[in-house]
This record gives sequence, structure tokens and C-alpha cells, in this order.
Amino acid sequence: MSYLLLTQQVMFALKQSSRIVAPGCRYVSQAAAKTAVDFDYDGPLMKTEVPGPRSRELMKQLNEIQNADAVHFFCNYEESRGNYLVDVDGNRMLDLYSQISSIPIGYNHPALVKLLQQPQNLSTFINRPALGILPPENFTKKLKESLLSVAPKGLNQIITMSCGSCSNENAFKLIFLWYRNKERGNSSASKEELETCMINQPPGCPDYSILSFMGGFHGRTLGCLAATHSKPIHKLDIPTFDWPIAPFPRLKYPLDEFVKENEQEEARCLEEVEDLIVKYRKKKRTVAGIIVEPIQSEGGDNHASNDFFRKLRNIARKHGCAFLVDEVQTGGGATGKFWAHEHWGMEDPADIVSFSKKMMIGGFFHKNEFRPDAPFRIFNTWLGEPSKNLMLREVIDVIKKEGLVNNAVQAGKVLHRGLLELQARYPHLMSSTRGQGTFCSFDAPDDAIRNKLIIQARNKGVVLGGCGERSIRFRPTLVFKDHHANLFLNIFNDVLADFK
Amino acid sequence: MSYLLLTQQVMFALKQSSRIVAPGCRYVSQAAAKTAVDFDYDGPLMKTEVPGPRSRELMKQLNEIQNADAVHFFCNYEESRGNYLVDVDGNRMLDLYSQISSIPIGYNHPALVKLLQQPQNLSTFINRPALGILPPENFTKKLKESLLSVAPKGLNQIITMSCGSCSNENAFKLIFLWYRNKERGNSSASKEELETCMINQPPGCPDYSILSFMGGFHGRTLGCLAATHSKPIHKLDIPTFDWPIAPFPRLKYPLDEFVKENEQEEARCLEEVEDLIVKYRKKKRTVAGIIVEPIQSEGGDNHASNDFFRKLRNIARKHGCAFLVDEVQTGGGATGKFWAHEHWGMEDPADIVSFSKKMMIGGFFHKNEFRPDAPFRIFNTWLGEPSKNLMLREVIDVIKKEGLVNNAVQAGKVLHRGLLELQARYPHLMSSTRGQGTFCSFDAPDDAIRNKLIIQARNKGVVLGGCGERSIRFRPTLVFKDHHANLFLNIFNDVLADFK
Repeated sequence: MSYLLLTQQVMFALKQSSRIVAPGCRYVSQAAAKTAVDFDYDGPLMKTEVPGPRSRELMKQLNEIQNADAVHFFCNYEESRGNYLVDVDGNRMLDLYSQISSIPIGYNHPALVKLLQQPQNLSTFINRPALGILPPENFTKKLKESLLSVAPKGLNQIITMSCGSCSNENAFKLIFLWYRNKERGNSSASKEELETCMINQPPGCPDYSILSFMGGFHGRTLGCLAATHSKPIHKLDIPTFDWPIAPFPRLKYPLDEFVKENEQEEARCLEEVEDLIVKYRKKKRTVAGIIVEPIQSEGGDNHASNDFFRKLRNIARKHGCAFLVDEVQTGGGATGKFWAHEHWGMEDPADIVSFSKKMMIGGFFHKNEFRPDAPFRIFNTWLGEPSKNLMLREVIDVIKKEGLVNNAVQAGKVLHRGLLELQARYPHLMSSTRGQGTFCSFDAPDDAIRNKLIIQARNKGVVLGGCGERSIRFRPTLVFKDHHANLFLNIFNDVLADFK
Repeated sequence: MSYLLLTQQVMFALKQSSRIVAPGCRYVSQAAAKTAVDFDYDGPLMKTEVPGPRSRELMKQLNEIQNADAVHFFCNYEESRGNYLVDVDGNRMLDLYSQISSIPIGYNHPALVKLLQQPQNLSTFINRPALGILPPENFTKKLKESLLSVAPKGLNQIITMSCGSCSNENAFKLIFLWYRNKERGNSSASKEELETCMINQPPGCPDYSILSFMGGFHGRTLGCLAATHSKPIHKLDIPTFDWPIAPFPRLKYPLDEFVKENEQEEARCLEEVEDLIVKYRKKKRTVAGIIVEPIQSEGGDNHASNDFFRKLRNIARKHGCAFLVDEVQTGGGATGKFWAHEHWGMEDPADIVSFSKKMMIGGFFHKNEFRPDAPFRIFNTWLGEPSKNLMLREVIDVIKKEGLVNNAVQAGKVLHRGLLELQARYPHLMSSTRGQGTFCSFDAPDDAIRNKLIIQARNKGVVLGGCGERSIRFRPTLVFKDHHANLFLNIFNDVLADFK
């Protein structure tokens, strides 16, 4: 397929090249050519197919030193701005995937450029401390100004980690410590426990388990992987634990049209959760905690109702299991709340909330009662990184000042509504459009068509990502505005119209 | 105990305050007052006990949001230079622990300051990509100039990770994939495997194991923790795998005086390794790989001979087990070789070598035959970080230009010899002095005395770290020179002489 040249006057070019769409169908936005974000570009600009010749050459070079088959293309991050990712062949694309949902406020945001230019901040980037033993003077202050300023309700304790997997691994450990201490009551660990733990045996290493959901994704290290069930490629050939796996509701969309069926489906899943807790207690693999994503992301953007999560949380409480909400992908504002679990409207939504990606660093918030009872029980050399706390402080400041969580509600409405319209127009290519805020998705008929749609959109200047077996997920940054949504919808309309 | 005020004329002050040592016993170095490293200070300068009042206040604040009992003191990283760590009370200490062995070329090295000041580098610090799918243009180039320029013999493949634990977790996964593919031969995964892996069952999730050593430390996430056996506090209450654990030689020091006994001890351990491989194969927990540190670091700086490692590597080869050398703490030059396993003098020392800490980023080198057979099998969102590759390139450049690996040999000799002399003088406080390069250690009589020695040394201006049950380990940066060693030895002589 020959590539489409998009000039800076992208709307004009699009209208020239559009073949079948009637004028009334275009998502015209007054702001389409305007740069609402002052460091943004005003549209895609395509010069080659993607990956272009330079990317292909670099892929070949990288492939000599590691398997590079997952690489989409090589990027020019210096030239990327706001919502636009520029590649090494000079193509400029509207990015609705944002590095697997991990860029909070766009590329090269001026607030971060400024931060890096201030000489007094250099030392924080150069001298990475062992935070658990030798923190910098402003450590608590920066945590308070950044992460703790957006702490989920009731969770006043914070531990930082270097990535999402380490966050969940250590959240699991926190749960196990808490559960065992509950069982112990006031007594301390026995000599037998202290001895047997050193040789990987109970009672020192108890056979506790974490209940997870089919379709869930919580990371790829061995502990996380025991709770991850999104795709075989993640798990095949890796030893694991016999931990209980409950079905996650497979709902019909739009949710408000299938209330009854969806309620029944959720009830079935919740019943299974309770059965598994009882069953695993009997087989001496006591469920110490439950882990769940507010929206199963890698697994295919599977939603459940607020009612489902409220009931699930209550089941956890009833059976004395810790309730760990994994907000690695959902956290940071894209769903229209800073934390997706806020949609549940609960007073006591979680015991632990883990995060990473848009938060720039990993970690988890937790209740006071989960606080480790001794130093070095939750510990590693770096325990996160102060330079990330520093940057996150700026990012959260921008999110607050510019009302970017509300923006996700607003831009999400435009995106969601537009996707529903496209779905109505192209039902052979799109179904089950769903979403909260800009955290939207739809299903393609199958894996092959999904991947083809992604590639064709990319060649027209839009970066999208897949998830699950046949879904396309939208994960724009928080500076994604109405006019970006309209711009995307126009381009994607052409992709769908031209699709063969 | 009242604190000792050390002025900038530290040698003078020391002589004034020294009470029992005869002049001939002092480790006089012509370079003592000289700043061989131009960004270094010329000696410790103590104003308060450590932790001082400001540190104590900050500890109280931090303790409100997380268990802060492990914090030694709070630091002023802006004012720290070279080998000197400055705290928030204005105390300047000679740092022989370097953030748990993770600062390669000292604090605020001018090469890194310069790097951060160059505008063209800012974007790399601001825009953290998903490296596995959207790497920056210079990704391969920077890996070649940094990590691959010091690749261990025969290991031409590289995968980066965000920390040491993730490095070993993913190295384990690489081993399991490799082992299973060996078993499969040319056939691909069966339908049953693809289905069962999703529900944590064999054959999709096979019961492979990793053989590790008692006393070893490989990280604290659940997979790593199954191979870690250094202290109960790391492992207590955490579910784990039934993986084989071999005894690590408990040698007598100095090694050249106990050759015969040590040989017998090593033979006993190697025999046990082979027995365990056979035993675990029989119980269907096949040993897919062996993990070992060249020097067991967290576990107490336990050494073994080159001959031991050569034989162990051959046992791995004989039984078809992968051989994973964990150089997270030993790697980077401090032992007098860039990688500690180079001391073994082997043509084929390892299949995989993992690293982190001084390398600024985690990851592992591996042989071509261990290359993942498909994309996304070893994967996560960040897969390391380009800004660390950029800094590491400068660090490795400094190491090479300034001959810092050879410096570790030279400064290590001064440190080691001095410790042996102190041990001869204070045998009631020091035993089993041992080391390679500056990677030295000795044993105190017990845990309490060890900790007291660390605190008293700190109050005289020297930061030390413990390891194992009663050892003190030396982990200075690579810019630690002869005169720093002499300065330390003089101060520590006073600590030992004054000890009560």
C-alpha cells in the first residue's frame, strides 16, 4: 500500500485524500489546527511507510545484540512534542499509545525541560542513592508533594519501587507478612520458622496464595506471573505457583444495554471467587490476598461494574484477605479519575494500590495496618529513584493546574462518542466500543484484522496499540484534547473506509 | 560517646587525638592531603554525631509515611563529592560503602555533571520510552559503547532491566525457555501446554528449578527469593519454590594458609551439587540452571577458589544446566577485574551474567543460544532506561581512561595489607580478613560488636557496611585511591584502639 503524505495542513490534506466519506461525516473541530498545548505540533506529517528505511536499518543492527522482533520503529525523542511521536525517518505521528500508557503529560513537556535545566536539580539525576538507608534531604517532602498528594483514600503509607513488576511483587510480600502476623497474634516467629524459611520450607515459607483473575495482567517476574493470565506467550515454560484463578466477568457492551445479563455474569464470577477462597483454604494454600485491575488492560480492556468491585472488595474483607488494586495501567488520570477505583465510590476501596507507568516510578500505597513490622523486610538497593519523584512532582503539578483529569473526561467523551459512531458505520470492523475517560477500546473481528488496522492507522499518522486477543486500546497522554480526538477520528474513519 | 571533630587538616587532627598508637603504626601516605581526584574533598569533617539532629528530625518525618528504621542518616547529595558523602548536618564522611556498592565513580563526577548540562541530552532524561517496541535512534550505539564494550567473554547478547531483582528474574526465565526448547527439539509448544500454562499447571508451567547456594543473595522478588539464602528476615513468611540449595564452601582465611582444608570443603560442596541435580531430576523438579555469585556478598563475603568455580561450571555443562553468574554486586571493576568471574581464567565461564548497581541499570549478557525464540517472551514496559545507558557510557569511559580497574588492584593491595596489619594488632576484634581488589572484608567477633564498629567508625568520619552475620564489607567507589585507603586505615586504627 502506498503511503499517504500528510502535510502540516492535515485537515486539508485529509479532505483531499478522503474518498468515500460524505462531508457531514467528518469530525470537524474548531480547534483542529490550533495548538492548545503550546509545545504540541498541529498534526501528523508522514514521509515514509512506518517502519521507514532508517528504522529498518536500525532494527537490523539491534537484532544483532537482542531479539528485536517486537520493535515497531525507532524514535527521535528530541523532536517529539506533546501528543506527537517523531520517528527516525522524519514521520510525525499522533500517539494514542504513549509508550504502553506510560507518558503522563506528553513528550518534552516544558515543565520537565525547565526542571532539567535548573542546575540545583542535576545532582538528583547523577547520584542515585540507596533510598532505604541514605535518602536525600528532600525525600519525604518530594513524596508528599508528588505521590502522597494524590494518595488513594485511607492509604497514607507509601513505598516506591523501580517498576510495575517489583511493585506488585513487593505488594504481595507485604500481604504475606501482614497475613502471617495476623495468624501469629502477639507471638514472634518461632525458631522453626526462622530455620525452615532459609531452606524454602514451611512453616517459615508458608503456602499462602494470591487470588487473581483470568485475563488479568500484573507483571512478568515469577511472583507476578503467577497472578498474570492474559496470554500464553507470557507464561509458557515458566515454573509457577498453584494459586487460585477466578473468572473475570465477560460483559456485553454497551454496559447500559445489557444490565441484566452482565449482572448474572458478575454474580457467577463472584460466587466462584468465594468458592475458590474456601477451596484453597481447605487445600492449605490459604488466600492471603486478592489482586485485581479496575479495568483488565493487557488482557483486552475488560470492564466490570462498580457494583462488581464493591462486592468483590466486601468478599475480601469478609474472608480476611487483603485487597490489592493494581493501578499500574489505569492510574494517573486517564479514566477520568486520578485512580480508576475512585469510580467505585467506596469509603474503603482497597488495602493496597500499586502503580507505575504514568507515575514515572513504581510503588504502592497501603494502609497503616499493612506497615512492615521491621526494617529490611520490604527493601532493595534503590527502592525507586529520587529523580523520578522530582519529575513526578512537576507532572502532578501540571495535571492539577491544567485540570488534566477533567480533560480526560471531556476528551474521553469526544473519543468514545466518535468511536461509537464509527462502530455504527463500520460494524464489520468494530464492536464492543467501551471506555472510561480516554481509556477506551473496541474489538476488531480477529487478531489479523486488528493488527492490520494498527499498521494502516500508523501509515496514516496515528500510533495505536492492541490488547487481548483482538482489541485496540486507546492510551493517549493526559494532554490529549478534544481536537486531537477529532483529528484521530477523521484519520481512522479513512482507515476504516479504505480497509481491505 | 562524644564526637571527634575532624578538620580539613585531617591527618593533623588525627595525630592530635590519637591516644595509643606509636608513630610507626600510622599509615602515612604522601598523598594523604592531596586531591588525586580533582572533585574530591581532602578528608572527613565531622560536626555532630551521626545521625545528627537534622537527620533525626527527618527520620521522624519519613517514619510517618513508611517504616524508616533502616535509615542510617539523610544525605546532602549536592555537597557530596568523589569518595565523600555529606549528610544533612554538615558531616562529611569518607564513604567505603557507596550506596550498597552502587556508585561507580564517586559522587557528582564532573563527567556526569557535564553530560547533564548538555542540552542535547535532556530529552533522554525526560522521555522514557518503552524500549522493547519504540527505542531511541542511538539505542544500539549506546549499548555498544557502554555495556557491550565490557561484555564478558562469549556473551554477545544483552537485555537491560530496571533493577537487579528483575535482572535475575528474567535471567531465570531465559533459562527456563532455553531448557524447555532443548527438550522440545524441533517441535513447537503443544495445545495442552498453551492451555495449561494459563491456569498455572504443567506441562505448560513445568516444575523446573534453579539450584542456588546457602548464603547466596540474588534479590527479593519471589523468583529471586527462592534462590536467596542469606538472612531469615529476607525470606520469612514468603511463599516459595522447592528448589535445591547446595552448601557454599565455608573457607578458612587467609586462603593460601589453608589450601588443603579448603580443597576438601570445596570438594564436599561440589559433590552435594551433583547429588542435588540427580535428586531433583528424580523428583521431577529438574535443575534447569545454577546461579552463583563469584563472591557471596550480602551473605557475608564468602569466597571460593577459582578451581571451585571452574569445577562448578563444568558440572553445570555436564548435566546440561545453564550457568548463571550473578555479578550484581561484584561486577564493574572493584575486584580488580571488570567482572569478578574473569579471575577464574576460563574460556567459557558463563552462559548468562547478570548485573546492576555500579552499572546504573540492571540486565544480563547471554550467549547466542539463549536468545529468546520469539518477541515479547522477555519483555516489560521499560526494559531499562536510555538515560542510564547514556550515563553508563560516560562512566565506562572514565573507568577506561583513568585505569580504574587497575586502580582497584592497587588501592585494594593497600587496603588489604592494612587490614591484615590491623587484624594482627587487634585479633580480638578482627579475623578472616579477605578480599579481591578493594572488595575486602573481615569478621568481627559477633553481630553486636560489628554494628558498634560501624557506628564508631561513622562518628569518626567513615561510612562502612555490614554483611552476613558478623562481617564488615568494603565497597568503595572505583575512584578510591591509595591515600583514601591510608586515611581510612588511620581512622579505623583509632576506632579499634578506642573500642570498648
